[in-house]
Amino acid sequence: MKVKFNSEVRDYRTVWMEGSVVYMIDQPKLPHRFETYGSKDYRETVAAIKNMVVRGAPAIGATAAFGVAQAALEFKGKDFRDFLRHMEKAEKTIKNTRPTAYDLFYAVKKMMDEMRIAGSVDEAQSILRKASQKYADESAGRCRLIGLNGEPLIKDSARVLTHCNAGALGCVDHGTALAPIRAAEYDGKNPFVFIDETRPRCQGSRLTAWELVQEDIKHCIIVDNAAGYLMRKGEIDLVIVGADRINSNGDVVNKIGTYEKAVLARENSIPFYVAAPESTFDFHCKTVDDVEIEERDEDEVLYMWGLDPSNELGRVRIAPKESGARNPAFDITPTEYVSKIITEEGVYKPEEISKRFG
Amino acid sequence: MKVKFNSEVRDYRTVWMEGSVVYMIDQPKLPHRFETYGSKDYRETVAAIKNMVVRGAPAIGATAAFGVAQAALEFKGKDFRDFLRHMEKAEKTIKNTRPTAYDLFYAVKKMMDEMRIAGSVDEAQSILRKASQKYADESAGRCRLIGLNGEPLIKDSARVLTHCNAGALGCVDHGTALAPIRAAEYDGKNPFVFIDETRPRCQGSRLTAWELVQEDIKHCIIVDNAAGYLMRKGEIDLVIVGADRINSNGDVVNKIGTYEKAVLARENSIPFYVAAPESTFDFHCKTVDDVEIEERDEDEVLYMWGLDPSNELGRVRIAPKESGARNPAFDITPTEYVSKIITEEGVYKPEEISKRFG
Repeated sequence: MKVKFNSEVRDYRTVWMEGSVVYMIDQPKLPHRFETYGSKDYRETVAAIKNMVVRGAPAIGATAAFGVAQAALEFKGKDFRDFLRHMEKAEKTIKNTRPTAYDLFYAVKKMMDEMRIAGSVDEAQSILRKASQKYADESAGRCRLIGLNGEPLIKDSARVLTHCNAGALGCVDHGTALAPIRAAEYDGKNPFVFIDETRPRCQGSRLTAWELVQEDIKHCIIVDNAAGYLMRKGEIDLVIVGADRINSNGDVVNKIGTYEKAVLARENSIPFYVAAPESTFDFHCKTVDDVEIEERDEDEVLYMWGLDPSNELGRVRIAPKESGARNPAFDITPTEYVSKIITEEGVYKPEEISKRFG
Repeated sequence: MKVKFNSEVRDYRTVWMEGSVVYMIDQPKLPHRFETYGSKDYRETVAAIKNMVVRGAPAIGATAAFGVAQAALEFKGKDFRDFLRHMEKAEKTIKNTRPTAYDLFYAVKKMMDEMRIAGSVDEAQSILRKASQKYADESAGRCRLIGLNGEPLIKDSARVLTHCNAGALGCVDHGTALAPIRAAEYDGKNPFVFIDETRPRCQGSRLTAWELVQEDIKHCIIVDNAAGYLMRKGEIDLVIVGADRINSNGDVVNKIGTYEKAVLARENSIPFYVAAPESTFDFHCKTVDDVEIEERDEDEVLYMWGLDPSNELGRVRIAPKESGARNPAFDITPTEYVSKIITEEGVYKPEEISKRFG
């Protein structure tokens, strides 16, 4: 993705590995400061996923793949059985970071499977270094294809609503929901993006807005409450969101609030598209109630997080000290509200996904 | 309403007049600090409405009524024609504070009508002092009746969702949406309230939560994105909101996000009730598109307002400095999403309102 530095524009990925260090764009510091964070061992990478230094399903997947490689590279002995025990422990720890995004489990399984042909520690380390890099490259490539496949759905001067950040920052690069918007902009279609701020962590107003600023794509931020009003007024032509998990009948698990936008889109006859790569499809999951919906710390709701450079405190309480909160981080959008799913292979009706990828 | 001071509980109204000073609970300081604000002349009262020191349709109405009385009391001469010119100017200024809530126009008109029988400045001043006090008393009384009429809709241990603050703080006392919840609590029904935080100004997490803390009513705060998820999971039994204006066919203008909750409630077969007194009914307004929807300053969206005592700055920016925002403050919920309207006269279907009150 493009990142502006004064008058210069540099190219960045959200997460990458150099030597045994996993680097990532430090997302809680955006939009006020652009910094990268380097995690020196797999436990630091695990902490970065938990604390949402990196977030977004495909980005979590790639970070987890690098984490598995890091765990292998950290192993100092030569005993292959000790190594395998070490890797089993690392696998468990990495999978135990966040429960909802399928890409995490998909990536870790893929790395552990790749390692199976290895007969020694050296060989396993070498395989995992290459496999994790390949995973990240392919993940970026899939998002680029999602952009090309989704681009025809965006007409000239289309007004697109998106929720949360399913952009380059939520992936290795390009984004899922934002990839077709980027492609439409490059194509001269001049899209306009309404960004749901996406409480509680404001990935919309903080991250999606930041990405669109970098690319000079026209946009404005709205509170999550305002999308329905604008839909009813005819100011929104289509909705595109990403996904954390899509099950075999096309139900979509995504950031809390996605279900609300999907219901409102159908009520107002506005197409509702979900953009997601294969790593998001969980065909073991038949019914949506099998998916664990992460409930995060109530402080995310009770405090507001800004990290304005003029306010190092970074948070202000917006509720009485006696009040508590519920904080489900994701919701489930049943397949009947989803118009199409945009994938690296093409654009499908939700019910076609399991036939195509299953 | 009850307000806790250490171990003592005192009774307060949201707005009242002593001498020629209009006092109000200083709402932007809640929930962190309970303070009252006294406006010494009608222009200060106008500023307090504009800056949302006082907000909520019935509270704005009563404040405006006191503002009209203040304007009269401020007049120093004896020339009745000069007085009437002064009052006309004051009327215009007071009506020009906020465009959406009907109570404002209803209250100002009522005061100006009351004054018509006066033949002198003294007489007009005396009439308006009494009439504004009567307006506030009757407004409080109507809300108390809304509580009694709405209470049977709340079953034992019902889980109620509310949006924004349609509580005592949005009225002179008792509240509209919160009045039936208060009545149910006094009746031992043990309701549980889910409070939408209600971005951008967080009237839910700041004000409704504060009111429920004062009365020890069980509650939790959720982000506006989470209500749909909880409805779909069967965790919400009914929704009650207030209104800023209800037109002759029962369309409801209320805080931005109300329309979203109403659509989601119908989609999940959950009753959606609107609680409002007669002062909210605008029968001159036939189609919803006649209502002016206030668009407020984009900074309300781009910054977060907390006023945590440890952070006197009071706001943190949550968006890139290059990004703008749209900030419609209200939306329109068409009558087909409204199950019943709870009034001081009883509970009606939306289509019955104009027959009963028109």
